[in-house]
Amino acid sequence: MYLGKVIGTVVATRKDENLIGTKLMITQPLDIDSKPKGEPIIAVDTVGAGIGELVICVKGTAGRIAARKMDAPIDIAIVGIVDEITIS
Amino acid sequence: MYLGKVIGTVVATRKDENLIGTKLMITQPLDIDSKPKGEPIIAVDTVGAGIGELVICVKGTAGRIAARKMDAPIDIAIVGIVDEITIS
Amino acid sequence: MYLGKVIGTVVATRKDENLIGTKLMITQPLDIDSKPKGEPIIAVDTVGAGIGELVICVKGTAGRIAARKMDAPIDIAIVGIVDEITIS
Amino acid sequence: MYLGKVIGTVVATRKDENLIGTKLMITQPLDIDSKPKGEPIIAVDTVGAGIGELVICVKGTAGRIAARKMDAPIDIAIVGIVDEITIS
Amino acid sequence: MYLGKVIGTVVATRKDENLIGTKLMITQPLDIDSKPKGEPIIAVDTVGAGIGELVICVKGTAGRIAARKMDAPIDIAIVGIVDEITIS
Repeated sequence: MYLGKVIGTVVATRKDENLIGTKLMITQPLDIDSKPKGEPIIAVDTVGAGIGELVICVKGTAGRIAARKMDAPIDIAIVGIVDEITIS
Repeated sequence: MYLGKVIGTVVATRKDENLIGTKLMITQPLDIDSKPKGEPIIAVDTVGAGIGELVICVKGTAGRIAARKMDAPIDIAIVGIVDEITIS
Repeated sequence: MYLGKVIGTVVATRKDENLIGTKLMITQPLDIDSKPKGEPIIAVDTVGAGIGELVICVKGTAGRIAARKMDAPIDIAIVGIVDEITIS
Repeated sequence: MYLGKVIGTVVATRKDENLIGTKLMITQPLDIDSKPKGEPIIAVDTVGAGIGELVICVKGTAGRIAARKMDAPIDIAIVGIVDEITIS
Repeated sequence: MYLGKVIGTVVATRKDENLIGTKLMITQPLDIDSKPKGEPIIAVDTVGAGIGELVICVKGTAGRIAARKMDAPIDIAIVGIVDEITIS
């Protein structure tokens, strides 16, 4: 599970029909200090995340589990919105 | 899910028989500013993508789901054609 | 399986309902000399790991197996607490 | 799916019994200009690839699908021999 | 499948109960010239590998297949001991 920040959206009219109705968010991976790390990815939002929010993302089969769409070609999803990070 | 740009095609006559009929596209991964990022990969097109188009790719099992070919050795597929990216 | 050190926790009130009750730990990947390597990730603790402990993490489906939650969107878990590393 | 070039072979007498009979080829990943990229990996050949040939490799479950050996510990396989790459 | 060299062991008393009885080996990934490449990982030995031996490792589900433990949180395993590498 990875930290990310929602920074935008993607619109794709021509797409796999099992992706219809999914919300595709551009998500910037972050390091622990909330600095950008690597390139943005496209994640399916499953928790109502908004632009600017700090989120938890998962990859692979976990993405389809989160979306409750095991027959959709999803490999990354947003599964939580971060309230607080505590580093000890 | 990853942004990419279709830049070419691959022809392979000798291949796994479950790949027969698939369209293999050379796809250049892009960063959010549409600049090339990393090396091109070979993706199975499932949405009728053309050369030069900006596309959404998935990896792993999601690739076979997109191709509706669970018994084919596919691990990357094109699942959407990008109309618009909005960064906020 | 990867070495890591538990360095913090994440609180996310709005999350996938199948993640309710999981303990999300910020885990810093380590190299063999116990020096930080790469960025921290978020792992589901399944063995009662505490802050500062050296742990073994797994990725992918193995994370859901460790959590005994095959229907939860988990892709990384802590599966062991390291007592000793011997390099020969 | 990734481009590679077959550069050698590996012999392992002591191995998982479900790997007996597989042909293990050292494969150098290539970039789009056919230049080496990253370190060689070991791929199970499923299409009769020879030394020096340009091939298509897959990772993960797709490797076992290609080998028709779902109970063998295979995570990379050669699934095609490249005839032609066209970059537009 | 990846080349590695067994360089040590890990002891973890508190661990997932489905890992009890597995032998956890510190394995250094190698490049084709047998030089270290990247950081050591922890692999479950399934072939009786000893310290100093050159081995073949697999990742993901293939690791559980090798260990004959589909319900254990394993994502990397040693599946063969290298006798000879031939680069042509």
